[in-house]
Amino acid sequence: MRADARDNRARIMAAANEVFGRSPSASTDDVARLAGVGIATVFRHFPTKVELLEAVLTLRLERIREDALAAADSTDPGTAFYRFFTAVVADSASKLAIAEALTTAGAAIGEDARKAGRGMREAIEGLLLAAQRAGAVRADAQMAEVYALLVGASRGATATNLQPEVRDRMLALIYDGLKPRS
Amino acid sequence: MRADARDNRARIMAAANEVFGRSPSASTDDVARLAGVGIATVFRHFPTKVELLEAVLTLRLERIREDALAAADSTDPGTAFYRFFTAVVADSASKLAIAEALTTAGAAIGEDARKAGRGMREAIEGLLLAAQRAGAVRADAQMAEVYALLVGASRGATATNLQPEVRDRMLALIYDGLKPRS
Repeated sequence: MRADARDNRARIMAAANEVFGRSPSASTDDVARLAGVGIATVFRHFPTKVELLEAVLTLRLERIREDALAAADSTDPGTAFYRFFTAVVADSASKLAIAEALTTAGAAIGEDARKAGRGMREAIEGLLLAAQRAGAVRADAQMAEVYALLVGASRGATATNLQPEVRDRMLALIYDGLKPRS
Repeated sequence: MRADARDNRARIMAAANEVFGRSPSASTDDVARLAGVGIATVFRHFPTKVELLEAVLTLRLERIREDALAAADSTDPGTAFYRFFTAVVADSASKLAIAEALTTAGAAIGEDARKAGRGMREAIEGLLLAAQRAGAVRADAQMAEVYALLVGASRGATATNLQPEVRDRMLALIYDGLKPRS
């Protein structure tokens, strides 16, 4: 791919991330407008809206994976674990909107996003183990229920349109449950 | 309404609760078949699928309200609070399916269900206060974040299709966060 084509692709994906993250029912036209390219350019890179949404969702999941890897590698994985959890929940509304846009477009989650989702889960599990080794998360909490809590907190915050301060108080309750019994 | 019409209405609603709770895309035909009445009888009571869904959702919310009131009134509201929380989460998949069916049918939640939802929230708040007075829930937890936790746990369990044992371990973490610090 030539450099200007790569630039266009990156701009389209950044615009799609923003547009569909705000509104699942947005159109490809809205994306082209924000990216400052013609609609034909969008379709050259992403022949269908589903392919564009899938690419954006995959990128989002890969970024969460990278954040989890960086947190697990940090000098204080315990603090990094709770910071990561908070960031994922705070950022979930637009990610869920993109997933919803895919469903509305009649598409099941495709192989790329599925693979990115598996990579993300593995990285989060690595972070959980690092935080447990650091003594910041109780040792008997397993990945399955911690992940369910993360998904639940994200969906709860989005579904009920939580005020940031209520969301933080909800997370404080969850974190007290995750911390080792003193 | 005559007694047999009342019976039919109750049978249609029970059938709709089951059918739409299993599959949001079910049809009114499926409901008529399970209720053992003709489709014309269904339409006489509920001229549109939206009205039927709305009636079923309202009934569900009213039942949760009654359960919360009974729990708050019991001799051990602390234990009853956690039992109520668990039952709502365990039962949430079919309730969310009915709400989803309403959205898919293109309807916003109507006034009846909205009013039932408000009544339910008030009853849950009463139960929370009773559990706090009994010393079973920390005094600094407010209704907003406890309700967000309840919604989040329900949606998390449904979205990730949790095994019952993972759901119970997730709830155990949440409950440890809700219990007073010892």
